[in-house]
Amino acid sequence: MQIAIVLYDRFTALDAVGPYETLGRLPGAETVFVAERSGPLRADTGALALTADRTLSEVPGPDIVVVPGGPGQSALMEDAAFLDWLRTADATSTWTTSVCTGSLLLAAAGLLRGRRATSHWLALDQLGRFGAEPTGERVVTDGKYVTAAGVSSGIDMGLTLLGAIAGDDHARTVQLAVEYDPQPPYDAGSPEKAPAHLVDLLRSRSRFILT
Amino acid sequence: MQIAIVLYDRFTALDAVGPYETLGRLPGAETVFVAERSGPLRADTGALALTADRTLSEVPGPDIVVVPGGPGQSALMEDAAFLDWLRTADATSTWTTSVCTGSLLLAAAGLLRGRRATSHWLALDQLGRFGAEPTGERVVTDGKYVTAAGVSSGIDMGLTLLGAIAGDDHARTVQLAVEYDPQPPYDAGSPEKAPAHLVDLLRSRSRFILT
Repeated sequence: MQIAIVLYDRFTALDAVGPYETLGRLPGAETVFVAERSGPLRADTGALALTADRTLSEVPGPDIVVVPGGPGQSALMEDAAFLDWLRTADATSTWTTSVCTGSLLLAAAGLLRGRRATSHWLALDQLGRFGAEPTGERVVTDGKYVTAAGVSSGIDMGLTLLGAIAGDDHARTVQLAVEYDPQPPYDAGSPEKAPAHLVDLLRSRSRFILT
Repeated sequence: MQIAIVLYDRFTALDAVGPYETLGRLPGAETVFVAERSGPLRADTGALALTADRTLSEVPGPDIVVVPGGPGQSALMEDAAFLDWLRTADATSTWTTSVCTGSLLLAAAGLLRGRRATSHWLALDQLGRFGAEPTGERVVTDGKYVTAAGVSSGIDMGLTLLGAIAGDDHARTVQLAVEYDPQPPYDAGSPEKAPAHLVDLLRSRSRFILT
């Protein structure tokens, strides 16, 4: 079992590391970080780089594909070679997954047409324009396609998929090992819960957050 | 304002990336990943490397120090040069913080003596042996020392500290931007909540998890 987590310039680090730290603890699985070129890839803030150990062409047939989001996805949406890799990988994958605006990349490759899917709350409208059926849920499974909402939701997705593949007890063991008993100091994690002026603030900046 | 996040061989990636993705969004702050040598450092699974852009000696006086945990901390606890750096950085820091077993490093440097602090639930006893007063809370603030429980708790710590420094509304905005509205698919994230046989399983493996 091979899990490929895709990196690219200006990805969002937690989008990738959430699934890595949970789903990556699947017994017997190899997790590999992949990108168009191997070596360090800078995350969106510029302050952090993660290493891609293999190029996309070296990993043509992963069992699980994980596509994180981030401002850099807008350039990748027009990258024919990347979208081709995604379609080819998807043709033989057991699960094709995304976190945050990573679902826009799956959608741009034509993989989410007519499927229920989610994305960062600021990107749900755009997801719909690619023929997906956007929902506001945190983790959405439609067939073998599992999409998660913004950034931190990749942890919930990772545990969900781990449970589906390795069983509930293994997923619970990983949850306990990473002590995932969240206690956010505020209750502003979704547009339904956050104060309206903060939702408006982020909407006004969405061009900078998403591209 | 400078935030230094420490890396070392066999750290736990989410310990570092949780605070990076939240606290790192402090307005006007520079976040820098530091290690004894600059370049890529492998996380505990071996499947992921994060880049340290600067050496410890290049960053002698950060305003905020963040020390993640991971199996590699046991070697660092006996590394006099690292503990010296930590004590020197702490002498001028505004906040000295840790995630998971990172608190064992703060404690080994003598910084938590007589202070309330936390760690990964499997490491609380060891933390007490260094003269700290361990608590089972998820995020513990004692003066300028902020310690967080296992792995994923660094997200809660990052938002807590962000609120203390930049105000509640900024912390809420970051929470909304990273869509931190956790919905774990299981309720096994602490030893109080997880099934007893899984707690016992991890206790029996704690030697491999912690060192």
